[in-house]
Amino acid sequence: MEAVKTTAERATKLKTNQVKAYGTVAAETPLDQMDIQRRNATPHDVEVDILYCGVCHSDLHTARNEWHGTTYPVVPGHEIVGKVVSVGDHVTKFKVGDTAAVGCMVDSCRECQYCKEDLEQFCEQGCIQTYNSPDKHLGIRTYGGYSERVVVDEAFVLRVPENLDLAATAPLLCAGITTYSPLKHWNVGPGQKVGIVGLGGLGHMGVKIAKAMGAEVIVFTTSQSKVEDAKRLGADDVVLSKDEEQMKRYAGKLHFILDAVSAQHDINAYLNQLRVDGSLALVGAPEEPLPVAAFSVIMGRKSFAGSMIGGIAETQEMLEFCGKHNIVSDIEMINIDQINDAYTRLLKGDVKYRFVIDMASLKK
Amino acid sequence: MEAVKTTAERATKLKTNQVKAYGTVAAETPLDQMDIQRRNATPHDVEVDILYCGVCHSDLHTARNEWHGTTYPVVPGHEIVGKVVSVGDHVTKFKVGDTAAVGCMVDSCRECQYCKEDLEQFCEQGCIQTYNSPDKHLGIRTYGGYSERVVVDEAFVLRVPENLDLAATAPLLCAGITTYSPLKHWNVGPGQKVGIVGLGGLGHMGVKIAKAMGAEVIVFTTSQSKVEDAKRLGADDVVLSKDEEQMKRYAGKLHFILDAVSAQHDINAYLNQLRVDGSLALVGAPEEPLPVAAFSVIMGRKSFAGSMIGGIAETQEMLEFCGKHNIVSDIEMINIDQINDAYTRLLKGDVKYRFVIDMASLKK
Repeated sequence: MEAVKTTAERATKLKTNQVKAYGTVAAETPLDQMDIQRRNATPHDVEVDILYCGVCHSDLHTARNEWHGTTYPVVPGHEIVGKVVSVGDHVTKFKVGDTAAVGCMVDSCRECQYCKEDLEQFCEQGCIQTYNSPDKHLGIRTYGGYSERVVVDEAFVLRVPENLDLAATAPLLCAGITTYSPLKHWNVGPGQKVGIVGLGGLGHMGVKIAKAMGAEVIVFTTSQSKVEDAKRLGADDVVLSKDEEQMKRYAGKLHFILDAVSAQHDINAYLNQLRVDGSLALVGAPEEPLPVAAFSVIMGRKSFAGSMIGGIAETQEMLEFCGKHNIVSDIEMINIDQINDAYTRLLKGDVKYRFVIDMASLKK
Repeated sequence: MEAVKTTAERATKLKTNQVKAYGTVAAETPLDQMDIQRRNATPHDVEVDILYCGVCHSDLHTARNEWHGTTYPVVPGHEIVGKVVSVGDHVTKFKVGDTAAVGCMVDSCRECQYCKEDLEQFCEQGCIQTYNSPDKHLGIRTYGGYSERVVVDEAFVLRVPENLDLAATAPLLCAGITTYSPLKHWNVGPGQKVGIVGLGGLGHMGVKIAKAMGAEVIVFTTSQSKVEDAKRLGADDVVLSKDEEQMKRYAGKLHFILDAVSAQHDINAYLNQLRVDGSLALVGAPEEPLPVAAFSVIMGRKSFAGSMIGGIAETQEMLEFCGKHNIVSDIEMINIDQINDAYTRLLKGDVKYRFVIDMASLKK
């Protein structure tokens, strides 16, 4: 028998299983049930029966092709928690019955400088995202967590601390790591004043994590209605960003700002809150460029920076940190057939603070 | 005799000397000769006979009130090199006959957190700039280096390495420290690719200093005519920034970029040149805000930062670094009565790379 050489050849050799999923075949159509193929676990793979999948704004962007890179059909979902149902022969980290999680990536080149530095999110070849990326094994596209099961190389599967509620853990896989990674990278800790801008899916995780890291946390929000909730989540103070007087309270006093706003907003007003050598890291992604005044960064040697998810090792570290500090997301559980309504509400910011799909509703 | 209490009272107690200077009484009028008062050296002061003064674009901005904060009359000049002609009783660092230099600051509060960290440029009270700042001693404004002599507290006077040409050393006091400080702060060194954007007074110092720090230096310029000169100054490569093909050459490859452009320019095109975790530090100050795309900083965890001169200790360190590596500015010497023409040429970028005034021409 000849050696198997090409992706297409490999694909024909791999046994697949049909599983139920929820996705869409076009930008304009709502999500609906569909069948997809999952490969059988190869020697390094873990097969996870999905219990819960969080709903990230990226799911909606991709389903509707708002980032112009969607290949259809697409099955969204990259905040996945479930149980291991089978493992390949060479798998060492997981056994059948373990709780496991999958986040935004399912593979990367593993050879470039960034992969070697545990920064797979910045893989030079482009990391393989959990959905809408090229699937090396089957020669199709990767399909996400709005499905019954997923098969992932164990190197990209995470362990879940036993003390955490599984449904509320799902959003940690994107919202959690997206906020933990910059807070860690910019050395947030005791003795520091840290601003969190925007109190949504990302922002509310930022508050919990920054607080657990020991910082004094100040939430900036446009909504009076969120003031009490911000304090309940752990904020030491809340600033209404539309109020110029309130915006003076921390001017020049913050060590770091995590900016989780995806809408257009005045970055200079926030850079002005930073101390000398302070950094603002953007994790939201406004569509239009943000005008930054030269003096906003020159005066005080400040940085306007950005951050994107985190590497696999750091994601595991984040899960353990959350386990230690009993941190999960505030969630609203939905059934899979409510996903289109959930998207509508997501656009209105009408969720506290993350929808999570109970995947049992797909399996009925 | 009662204690002297107020600034005004102090001022009347201080003996002053009339010295010749070059300045202006209004935004619209050219610079011309005028007489100003300098205090006699108080116990901590050093009196410097000015030999050379560099011409910085800030001089022009201030003379013409382009930053809207000028109090007239104004005497510009903050790249000062001269000889000590008298010292106060408590002065320990300098003696008569020493070469000495004065840069952009002549004092600060010395008590705030930033002053204590040798970051006087970010003094919470606002540092006392060499010109157009409140003069604590005389209750007037500070007057800069376009003058015969200057009297400065020894804490803000710099020593000059003996091996350097004095006229060409003058621009180090602003252009030198403004480029040295960010290159040092962002840890530029061997094994790194560093971009210098814009080859003017600041940029040409950036090339020399980054090269001496051991980096591979890539100059980005809009002018074909500057390519050869960039290489003469030490650049390892030059990229014509208007050429899209050339702009691909270092995409994702630079560790750090020093951006010395004061005109509007596409910051995203330069952020795109940075590696993961790379920073771009702006030292030019374009008038209009610079639009920064969210993905320019999110992808690769990049930073758009700024920097402004440097502290006194770091300025001394820079001078010693330049002494060790034999670095001075490329200059064009002028007489004081050519200053208005020099400003006209400065606006056209017609100088390689810094005008320096031979102050002997004022003393005739």
